[in-house]
Amino acid sequence: MSSASIEKAADELMASYAECIDDGRFDDWLELFTEDASYKVVARDNHDRGLPATMVLCTNKNMIRDRIAALHGATKYNFHYDRHVVGQLRVRPRSDDEWELRASYAVFQTSDEGRSSLFSVGRYLDRVRMEGERLLFCEKTVVVDTFAIPGMLATPL
Amino acid sequence: MSSASIEKAADELMASYAECIDDGRFDDWLELFTEDASYKVVARDNHDRGLPATMVLCTNKNMIRDRIAALHGATKYNFHYDRHVVGQLRVRPRSDDEWELRASYAVFQTSDEGRSSLFSVGRYLDRVRMEGERLLFCEKTVVVDTFAIPGMLATPL
Amino acid sequence: MSSASIEKAADELMASYAECIDDGRFDDWLELFTEDASYKVVARDNHDRGLPATMVLCTNKNMIRDRIAALHGATKYNFHYDRHVVGQLRVRPRSDDEWELRASYAVFQTSDEGRSSLFSVGRYLDRVRMEGERLLFCEKTVVVDTFAIPGMLATPL
Repeated sequence: MSSASIEKAADELMASYAECIDDGRFDDWLELFTEDASYKVVARDNHDRGLPATMVLCTNKNMIRDRIAALHGATKYNFHYDRHVVGQLRVRPRSDDEWELRASYAVFQTSDEGRSSLFSVGRYLDRVRMEGERLLFCEKTVVVDTFAIPGMLATPL
Repeated sequence: MSSASIEKAADELMASYAECIDDGRFDDWLELFTEDASYKVVARDNHDRGLPATMVLCTNKNMIRDRIAALHGATKYNFHYDRHVVGQLRVRPRSDDEWELRASYAVFQTSDEGRSSLFSVGRYLDRVRMEGERLLFCEKTVVVDTFAIPGMLATPL
Repeated sequence: MSSASIEKAADELMASYAECIDDGRFDDWLELFTEDASYKVVARDNHDRGLPATMVLCTNKNMIRDRIAALHGATKYNFHYDRHVVGQLRVRPRSDDEWELRASYAVFQTSDEGRSSLFSVGRYLDRVRMEGERLLFCEKTVVVDTFAIPGMLATPL
């Protein structure tokens, strides 16, 4: 694929990722990952020092699926809306069929009373891979600046 | 028009939309709409359930113009700056000359004392149309997560 | 260079700018400026009225370098992480080898206890120039909406 096509596909993938979470469409969200995909949330401090501790760690798609199912139960008691605003996307080739993506994000949450507040800021450090005709996440790492989570981490970041 | 040209024009249109509001250039802002354009602000909850209630509803460009004139009077007593940060733009064809645009936004307001705060987050669900050489909004729907508006809705979102 | 290549290079430059600050890589950040580059932070109100007062003013790269060195000392006592989220980028030609860039930004800061808050919103009004193979900032003007700075301006915006 040409570099322009990959950038367009990567942009589309990242936008879908955010949109699926914000819409609460977690089945569609899962379909953005490869079977062997990892999903990780890690505090920036740990990430920068190379420390292994993570806030969330799923090492394959089934673990991601389980986590989503668990969250789905929990959010009944913690209603809110999410809103992702993702900044500029950077795409770098890693091999013939893998690329690295980087982007800063801000996530805002809105309570059931309609009040919005900043929930998390940080950065995505991802790897994506072509599988057939589709570009998918094979590694999603959310490096959070905000490690003091106000409330619980009830939806993926 | 090619898909790449439309995406560029759509990006330009959305950026102009935000910039005109943030600069307070409402005459220029109006010129981004077709004569039959609607402008709507709707709470996400209502939108998701298909309920008809809106927070703002203008069903043609003259109504949008009237609303802006009214706001212009009101903002004399409620001074602030707006700042839009718009996330990734998604463009989908609807017909030969119409496209759908979607993007998440965060709007920040700054008081006359120079303090900034989050004012609104939500999503644009728009329709745009080619008129002559220009791409214009024929339907602008602002779906707000933040339905408890702190202060009044003194400028368009 | 073609208009598409310039837009890509400009996007890359702006993303690097934000990333270098957020990563604390100020030597890399400096390399994004020409030798004669100016770096200015100015309150929006002053900018709009054409008043000359600035919050930060460096009129060449050596002054920018000095300022960064001074900040480096200061941040030892004011630890925080920065996170830039930059909105849509607009690129306009000025001459054969210079372009204007504009973009809205939001900067969030995170304390050493992991709490994030909005730090500054505003707009970049920049000029960039091709030097050899690289696009570099020859004029960086940060027009801040947020002129009441919570804490000190310990890193560039």
